[in-house]
Amino acid sequence: MRKNYLLTPGPTPIPPQVAEAQARPIIHHRTPQFQAVLKEVNEGLEFIFQTTGDVFILTSSGTGAMEAAVVNLLSPGDSAICVEGGKFGERWIELCSAYGITPEVIKVEWGKAVDPQEIRSKLQAPSSKLKPKAVFTTLCETSTGVATDIEAIGKIVKETDAVLVVDAISGLGAVDLKTDAWGVDVCVSGSQKGLMLPPGLAFISTSIKAWEKINAAKCPKYYFDLKAAKKALDSTDTPFTPAITLVIALSEALKMMRQDGLENIFKRHKLMADATRAAMIALGLELFAPTAGSDVVTAVKAPAGIDGEKLVKTMRDTYGVTIAGGQAELKGKVFRIAHMGFIEEFDIIVGISCLEKVLRQMGYKFELGAGLKAAQEIFLR
Amino acid sequence: MRKNYLLTPGPTPIPPQVAEAQARPIIHHRTPQFQAVLKEVNEGLEFIFQTTGDVFILTSSGTGAMEAAVVNLLSPGDSAICVEGGKFGERWIELCSAYGITPEVIKVEWGKAVDPQEIRSKLQAPSSKLKPKAVFTTLCETSTGVATDIEAIGKIVKETDAVLVVDAISGLGAVDLKTDAWGVDVCVSGSQKGLMLPPGLAFISTSIKAWEKINAAKCPKYYFDLKAAKKALDSTDTPFTPAITLVIALSEALKMMRQDGLENIFKRHKLMADATRAAMIALGLELFAPTAGSDVVTAVKAPAGIDGEKLVKTMRDTYGVTIAGGQAELKGKVFRIAHMGFIEEFDIIVGISCLEKVLRQMGYKFELGAGLKAAQEIFLR
Repeated sequence: MRKNYLLTPGPTPIPPQVAEAQARPIIHHRTPQFQAVLKEVNEGLEFIFQTTGDVFILTSSGTGAMEAAVVNLLSPGDSAICVEGGKFGERWIELCSAYGITPEVIKVEWGKAVDPQEIRSKLQAPSSKLKPKAVFTTLCETSTGVATDIEAIGKIVKETDAVLVVDAISGLGAVDLKTDAWGVDVCVSGSQKGLMLPPGLAFISTSIKAWEKINAAKCPKYYFDLKAAKKALDSTDTPFTPAITLVIALSEALKMMRQDGLENIFKRHKLMADATRAAMIALGLELFAPTAGSDVVTAVKAPAGIDGEKLVKTMRDTYGVTIAGGQAELKGKVFRIAHMGFIEEFDIIVGISCLEKVLRQMGYKFELGAGLKAAQEIFLR
Repeated sequence: MRKNYLLTPGPTPIPPQVAEAQARPIIHHRTPQFQAVLKEVNEGLEFIFQTTGDVFILTSSGTGAMEAAVVNLLSPGDSAICVEGGKFGERWIELCSAYGITPEVIKVEWGKAVDPQEIRSKLQAPSSKLKPKAVFTTLCETSTGVATDIEAIGKIVKETDAVLVVDAISGLGAVDLKTDAWGVDVCVSGSQKGLMLPPGLAFISTSIKAWEKINAAKCPKYYFDLKAAKKALDSTDTPFTPAITLVIALSEALKMMRQDGLENIFKRHKLMADATRAAMIALGLELFAPTAGSDVVTAVKAPAGIDGEKLVKTMRDTYGVTIAGGQAELKGKVFRIAHMGFIEEFDIIVGISCLEKVLRQMGYKFELGAGLKAAQEIFLR
């Protein structure tokens, strides 16, 4: 008789009509019926990405789209700037290294955002003698809850020959990212975050500047080859069998999002984030990223004497409320409450309520209900 | 008020309990709850693959698993034998070429099966001076309906240093493939065929001999890196966020298949194939692969004066019965009726009935009901 609540930064909860769409009788993908769905989702994705460029659907996790960005833009021997301020920034470095691309790493203290000027300096004076051909960044670093100023970075990269690549797996469709207006050449995302779908689909957008690089890139590729994807897209098709039920679910999610409108979606995420942050502070807890906190996930330091891992486990296994623990070097030291996708105020209230309960049981001293009250005050504004 | 019937070689129809499983509230993948599912599906996959080796789940279409086989087993500059008797055999050649591997092509006439002795000859006397390190084959060539004698090929490859790789995307869990007993080192498959799932998952099995190659292989890779997959599998995890709802659906499909038993599943597929073939012959139609027809899909030549594409379109768009047309050089010349996965005798009856109706409308001369009667006779045996 226990209810389950999901407040994790991917997967995020699935709206009932999106969940139901997956269960409909399957249709074949090379039919006019499925082509009509593809046409609709392709348009919907351009709306969400705020681009007039092509957005490709890949059947993979978000990492597949990150790999697609690297192998389609670059050649072995190239160099690229990788901004690393968390686990997902590290992934760009690993990907570049796997394909023989020299990563010019800008190391950012975990919990802090990169200073865009550092990117300017690195572009002007790289460590190796190679001119970096791409700048790989992360919109919302899920592991630390930090948001990056993509708009400012876009202005800097636009003046160079390099392309700007943004991992917006966490964040797209939840916080503002003006792909075209901000000069984002390649934006990658995944289905299980702001788009309110199960994992299994990834997305990648491409600017005209990106296509100049794509046409010259020599990294080996096949499954993630965007030239093949482009050829298919131009006839409203996919190069390989797509995850049909997830694409149909995507069409439902995109309908909801278009109905809501991007401005409302971004406002809702900010409200959820503000309430969560206020609640944490009211409970005497310390935010892991006090100055650059993203609106999709809030990382909170486990207070002295409280094991963050145990807190997360108890909330999940005893009370059915799943939040996320810390990853890599933050394991046990932080917990993370996501407020992304199909989340509204009462989900946040449930999450805070459960957090208060377990913190109290674990012996942490605070005024019971203080977090809830702080959130309520935000929601009543 | 029209009902839709799916008789295509992927996707295949989804059983109701498998479809429903996708729509359940989503759970997080790094939880004991999901680990229990992963453990169960990993065991179920070993059962279906008839192997004691590791079987990895990838979030991709089947082509992703084919790429995983190539990049994990080989290094640029290697050579490999590719058996090409259809569109999917061609894919092995394209994949090898994309990664700098010289394909030693054994060209087989479309509609015929490869003679295993040709593989022996090619292994002993390759065209290039390189010793082929792998033999890439196709269990059931979906584009032509041809079945390959993997058991015989296994005996030949086993005596060499090369590994045998089988594309069993079409066929696994539908016709017999004894991965371990027949010496199949790497077997790849997809979710939307014999496993009765939507597309979106791919699978790859690995023998001990395969791991010797994997440990030495130098092709670049990241998303499809089996060493990372192995590390994750050993702690009942996946290296990247898996397609959670599809994995949960997989656990339902595997339960059904274990309950049925492999022998019964294979017998059922043979019965459906026999009935389909008998019906086509009774209608005076010619099978595209009269001697090596697989039990998962039957390719039939469009009779003189009948446009195969128009036949398929009319069946689908006017009557709701979706079969497949011909691919590549067979476009318009053949149609293909699949009898794979969640298909039983009355699905075949519906398919034949609709085919008879449309053939009659298109002016083809035959005795109405002759196909149905021939199928009935097989089903009554």
